[in-house]
Amino acid sequence: MEAHTFLIQLVLILFSARLFGELAAYFKVPAVIGELVAGIIIGPSLLGLVAMSNPIHLLAEIGIILLLFEVGIETDVGKLSSAGMKALIVAACGVILPFVLGFITSYYFFNFSLLACLFIGSTLTATSIGITLRVLRDLKKQKSRESHIVIGSAVIDDIIGIILLAVLYEFSMSGEVNLWNAGKILLFVMLFFFISPILAKGVSKIIKKWNEKSDIPGLLPTTIIALILLCAWTADMLGAPALLGGFAAGLALSRQFSFPFASFLRSSKEFSLRIEEQMKPIVHLFTPIFFVAIGLSLDLKAIQWGSTFIWALSGSLLLAAIIGKLLSAFFLKGETFMMKLVIGTAMIPRGEVGLIFANIGLTAGILQGDVYAAVILVITVTTLVAPFALRWLYSLAPKSMVR
Amino acid sequence: MEAHTFLIQLVLILFSARLFGELAAYFKVPAVIGELVAGIIIGPSLLGLVAMSNPIHLLAEIGIILLLFEVGIETDVGKLSSAGMKALIVAACGVILPFVLGFITSYYFFNFSLLACLFIGSTLTATSIGITLRVLRDLKKQKSRESHIVIGSAVIDDIIGIILLAVLYEFSMSGEVNLWNAGKILLFVMLFFFISPILAKGVSKIIKKWNEKSDIPGLLPTTIIALILLCAWTADMLGAPALLGGFAAGLALSRQFSFPFASFLRSSKEFSLRIEEQMKPIVHLFTPIFFVAIGLSLDLKAIQWGSTFIWALSGSLLLAAIIGKLLSAFFLKGETFMMKLVIGTAMIPRGEVGLIFANIGLTAGILQGDVYAAVILVITVTTLVAPFALRWLYSLAPKSMVR
Repeated sequence: MEAHTFLIQLVLILFSARLFGELAAYFKVPAVIGELVAGIIIGPSLLGLVAMSNPIHLLAEIGIILLLFEVGIETDVGKLSSAGMKALIVAACGVILPFVLGFITSYYFFNFSLLACLFIGSTLTATSIGITLRVLRDLKKQKSRESHIVIGSAVIDDIIGIILLAVLYEFSMSGEVNLWNAGKILLFVMLFFFISPILAKGVSKIIKKWNEKSDIPGLLPTTIIALILLCAWTADMLGAPALLGGFAAGLALSRQFSFPFASFLRSSKEFSLRIEEQMKPIVHLFTPIFFVAIGLSLDLKAIQWGSTFIWALSGSLLLAAIIGKLLSAFFLKGETFMMKLVIGTAMIPRGEVGLIFANIGLTAGILQGDVYAAVILVITVTTLVAPFALRWLYSLAPKSMVR
Repeated sequence: MEAHTFLIQLVLILFSARLFGELAAYFKVPAVIGELVAGIIIGPSLLGLVAMSNPIHLLAEIGIILLLFEVGIETDVGKLSSAGMKALIVAACGVILPFVLGFITSYYFFNFSLLACLFIGSTLTATSIGITLRVLRDLKKQKSRESHIVIGSAVIDDIIGIILLAVLYEFSMSGEVNLWNAGKILLFVMLFFFISPILAKGVSKIIKKWNEKSDIPGLLPTTIIALILLCAWTADMLGAPALLGGFAAGLALSRQFSFPFASFLRSSKEFSLRIEEQMKPIVHLFTPIFFVAIGLSLDLKAIQWGSTFIWALSGSLLLAAIIGKLLSAFFLKGETFMMKLVIGTAMIPRGEVGLIFANIGLTAGILQGDVYAAVILVITVTTLVAPFALRWLYSLAPKSMVR
């Protein structure tokens, strides 16, 4: 890509993200919706000014990794692990229900091949942690208890989603399922989540020492970003989504980080604050690129809006996707009805992982053009609908009901 | 490029830049040298871990634009224009002398074709403003009077260099020189430098208003970066180097910006400070990528170190390059000998524009393999030598001599 094309595309992405983000906020809609719409408007769906390209995709990837880093650094590890069991329940039900509903819909009502139905079911499993969290943040709810349950389950179902993807991908290639490989990936991911925060914490201690001695400005931005991207790369190498590496790095550098038997790794509050302060402008620069890129990767023009088949398929899959996630929170005990509704709604948006699934299905020849379009439509609508619904629920709920 | 390759390459670039930058500083060498060396070490010259690629090139481009932005925002426009006449003299002599010396050397001693000699001469003209300024900053001299003369002349000779390039490029294609086109580019560039700071200033006023009203965090990083990149793109469209757009945007947002007849455009000091503070981490993240990328784009392995021809050619061109720039400051009146020496030395490093020249010469078939290698060698050595020489001169000079 030529430098001048890249420059003007970045200008368009950053500027339209801000413009439509502000417009959305003005109409009391979460800003992230504005950023998605910005991508749809400047992308192939409407104006065709910016097409998805490799460099933009790479910047968007950094954007989602840094967003998860910021989520991690603001996460209270204690609260997250106290939400652990509940998060696990929501995540497990939130994977199983949409998968089963999606599979049944496509297998019994539309008679697709077994593999295609498995793919469609899987596409509906993974919550878009990025979009959900941006919405919670836009609503200033990111430190609430429900937010911790949602973060926990979104992280878990991203992991389950990726394992499903690995299994299905192998199934589509070799025609058989290798449980051994699936188990290996699960093991690696668990190891990663156990070890990487400790290692990242250790490295950050070295960076802190380094920072006190260095005369050359700019140590923190370069080294902390390098550390985050290293964690992301490691996660990717182990078969987990790269964005989980960003989350692990954020957890490690958070003010509340503590680890049993390793009190020497305890955080310096002042240093954590300096990192947050230095990282903020960088995170704010990169994250809108991710959300605009999701809009860019959708081509609403390519969908044959006249075909009833598409409306029937996408409509029923949409129901499966929404009901599946909504119900998942109702297996929780000891929560109010409103709380369950809020958690279920927050789990609705599908995004990056769903798009990855659909894309692999398309290139592997498992999903055909129309089916692909319907799946993309479902992902889009879940992403667009959930923020409105959440905002509405919060406006209904008395503060005492959602705590 | 795959995301995981990109991630680990960025990690290597950022980490090695910092490591070798700190090592350089430890040995009292400007940190920028460490960053260039980092690129040479991890690049094709030595370890071959990272190859120059399109995404890295684009990030490096943003890096040099943002560096020039930071230079611009810290530049006192008053001081810069009071340095104007002197800067013009140094720039003009600093283009003519190396060009003539380089041309004579290659034409009379090495008997290359006319076009090749013109190309070689031009390659020696443009000072690497990026490297020079990083060195002055590393030495904490960026606000000195000599620094303003050097910035002014480096900006001017970058412009002359680009015009020369445009003329020569056309000459190499059509076999004739079109003065009309050359004049058009010059006119555009002058118009750009007159209009763009005013426009950028106007836009920044809107951003300021916007910033006071917005509830969504991150307005400044996205909009200011978009503004900077827009200026860079505009410069590029008008035929000027993109980095000059970054410089113009920086000038417009600097605290000292003022414009005759337009007092309503006067800066708010507080707002300028907030911009500087928010931009710093971003600038510090991107600039090392540029310097490492210069190291990456050199392949020291490709040079046939055994050939005497290369040593003779590069040795004599190196002399031409150094003497040409050194002498350029001696046409100044009313400066001490030491001051002239410092200014001349600061003009020595060639970098990005020289590399662009050489690269076009190679792909157009005007420069052959060995000649190209010699030119690259000259660019490398000027870049590596000048910081040492500057540091040495400053340590020699009593403070009263260089003020």
